[in-house]
Amino acid sequence: MSNPQPAFADWLSDTNEITRLFLGASQIPGLINMAGGLPEPSVFPVASLAKLAEKAVTEHSEETLGYGPIEGLPELRDQIAARFSTPTLQLTRHHVLVTTSGMQGLDLIGKVLLNPGQTIAVQSPAYLGALDAWRPRQPSYRPFFPDQSAFDTTVFGGAQFAYTVPNFSNPTGRLIPLAQRQQMVDTAHQRATWLVEDDPYGTLFYDGEPLPRLLDLSAAKQPGHYQGPVIYLGTVSKQLVPGLRIGWVIAAPPIIDALTVAKQGSDMCTSGLSQRIVLEALAGGLDQHILPTLLRTYRARRDALCAAMTEHLSAWFRWDVPVGGMFVWAIARDPALNSDLLLEAAMQEKVCITPGSVFDPTGADRRGIRINFTLNPPEVLAEGVRRLARATSNLVSR
Amino acid sequence: MSNPQPAFADWLSDTNEITRLFLGASQIPGLINMAGGLPEPSVFPVASLAKLAEKAVTEHSEETLGYGPIEGLPELRDQIAARFSTPTLQLTRHHVLVTTSGMQGLDLIGKVLLNPGQTIAVQSPAYLGALDAWRPRQPSYRPFFPDQSAFDTTVFGGAQFAYTVPNFSNPTGRLIPLAQRQQMVDTAHQRATWLVEDDPYGTLFYDGEPLPRLLDLSAAKQPGHYQGPVIYLGTVSKQLVPGLRIGWVIAAPPIIDALTVAKQGSDMCTSGLSQRIVLEALAGGLDQHILPTLLRTYRARRDALCAAMTEHLSAWFRWDVPVGGMFVWAIARDPALNSDLLLEAAMQEKVCITPGSVFDPTGADRRGIRINFTLNPPEVLAEGVRRLARATSNLVSR
Repeated sequence: MSNPQPAFADWLSDTNEITRLFLGASQIPGLINMAGGLPEPSVFPVASLAKLAEKAVTEHSEETLGYGPIEGLPELRDQIAARFSTPTLQLTRHHVLVTTSGMQGLDLIGKVLLNPGQTIAVQSPAYLGALDAWRPRQPSYRPFFPDQSAFDTTVFGGAQFAYTVPNFSNPTGRLIPLAQRQQMVDTAHQRATWLVEDDPYGTLFYDGEPLPRLLDLSAAKQPGHYQGPVIYLGTVSKQLVPGLRIGWVIAAPPIIDALTVAKQGSDMCTSGLSQRIVLEALAGGLDQHILPTLLRTYRARRDALCAAMTEHLSAWFRWDVPVGGMFVWAIARDPALNSDLLLEAAMQEKVCITPGSVFDPTGADRRGIRINFTLNPPEVLAEGVRRLARATSNLVSR
Repeated sequence: MSNPQPAFADWLSDTNEITRLFLGASQIPGLINMAGGLPEPSVFPVASLAKLAEKAVTEHSEETLGYGPIEGLPELRDQIAARFSTPTLQLTRHHVLVTTSGMQGLDLIGKVLLNPGQTIAVQSPAYLGALDAWRPRQPSYRPFFPDQSAFDTTVFGGAQFAYTVPNFSNPTGRLIPLAQRQQMVDTAHQRATWLVEDDPYGTLFYDGEPLPRLLDLSAAKQPGHYQGPVIYLGTVSKQLVPGLRIGWVIAAPPIIDALTVAKQGSDMCTSGLSQRIVLEALAGGLDQHILPTLLRTYRARRDALCAAMTEHLSAWFRWDVPVGGMFVWAIARDPALNSDLLLEAAMQEKVCITPGSVFDPTGADRRGIRINFTLNPPEVLAEGVRRLARATSNLVSR
């Protein structure tokens, strides 16, 4: 071009190269991808969804092919409200916004709750996708660590909202214990901070029983028609299929209204076809039907990954076996190990993991790596770990 | 709640009430909705799309149900690149980003090209949805009027980008003449401004032949692999169905890369199911197949609307008969007529139109009204106009 066009927005210079590297990595032949949070496709209920798709278009053609309400199909909003309602948590469709993926929920929250440069209190390390979603608002971050026995709640003060993934936090895979859940909710109520509960993995419990949601703990403090500070994000991506791109926000009606205004300017409305398929799938219990297979498959893969790690990686890393979710979070024993460099070494060995730096709002972490166990069968995970061990050995002996 | 939570972002206080009023209006029984830009559902190729949906899930289950590439399915990107390529405009998939609706394209452009408060040169009056999409970036606007014989091109200077809907501009329905198209492109090249060409209505020509796209005029200045300043937005919403929420951006690869980063944090990827259906529908010529019916239906409705307007509204309004698109833009002869108040009066008569204020970046316009003719059959349009005439009569005799 003869003249340079105006520069891109400033936030684009803050994105990290690592993300693009590992997103592109899935195209490399022979590479074992343990970086992403991808599901096992063989668990998808293909035949049932194909039938539902055909039926949705045929029997609900205006709804599936035309424009729909910004907030989502009323029936789907009602169904989600009913699913999450309890005697103390009374939800109606006015508490529910259907979103085009859980990621869109994060984007809309950023648009609605953040003036440029405002502050978020964030569970650290934090989900990369949330940091990506909020980058255009250029927030500042105050980390908190709710897996510690009692965390410093003063970080909630002055924050527009606090952000947490209580169930199998991404990247750490940790289940936040009940006491810290209660502390987060109490703090949000006391300090009048919005509390964003991001819960994509809540159905993926391999051991033990689910803990109460923050939404439920908040409702217990003020039973009835929900008016509290928790903004809950759900999705069918991990419990059914991600390709339909359906998520939801459950929150007090005033914030649902504000998110709806933001959604109008983001994509106008979510695909009616995707919504109708999800509505029928949930109503017919398709997610419940595949859950045992999903849990059995992922539990075996988690065990295979951890067994291989114990055999090949324990000299260099320590980790906790996660009771659910999709990831093992391993921390280098040697503080000098740089996991960004380990990713490069791992790519040489044709295996891909996610380095901790991308989950740290300050970008400072260099000791953690996130390893996914849901996408690959046990024997591939074992080979991936052997490659990762070679990469680590190569890196530390440089 | 015991304490008020932190306030919403400032931009939310700038949204207008009119938008919510007319969006809610579609729920009112007996109301004739001539406000939105909705298609006629009977034209949807329901049976073909139902079959394509079933086949897409069955034969491409991982692609339709799993996560996909942020940029969109490679085959769909290739197909769009091929459709728009000419001897002077050479496009590859790297020039194409699939978006979750045309609206998402506008949102991503705002994220990528605007620091908060920067300036947009905007064809005035402007598409409401674009103003909505960019509100979170709180831009300032410089209007330009490319339907005038030669417009003031100095407004492009210092703007991050210029925005135009050359084919049947929303709301005015005007076709921007070739000379002004050339002037916009020349100015964008000379002043090195990005030029956003939003083209949802480009297939809806009822009279005469299409004019060259700005993208084509720009390519003619620098033939070859496209590197120019035009950022072209397309969608299947008006030529096929809106419910699949599929749009696209065609632009120089560096801006496609930046938009991809923004899309990653907006919804990660567009539904693979929607993309596969659109890919097969376009490949099979389904859009071409329904086009004659679409044009015949909409042409007859435009004629019916304009005939009724001539009979009942010409005392109060003047307008041009649009040669395409979905809207007639009528301007009150009396500068004192307030179209916001006319909407209220019209709602009393159970008819809904869109007042000009929502299309004016400064919110100052009070003389224009936008009337849609695609959603309702001729007799309903005629009745709507009679109601609108009563409302106007009531308003001016107050």
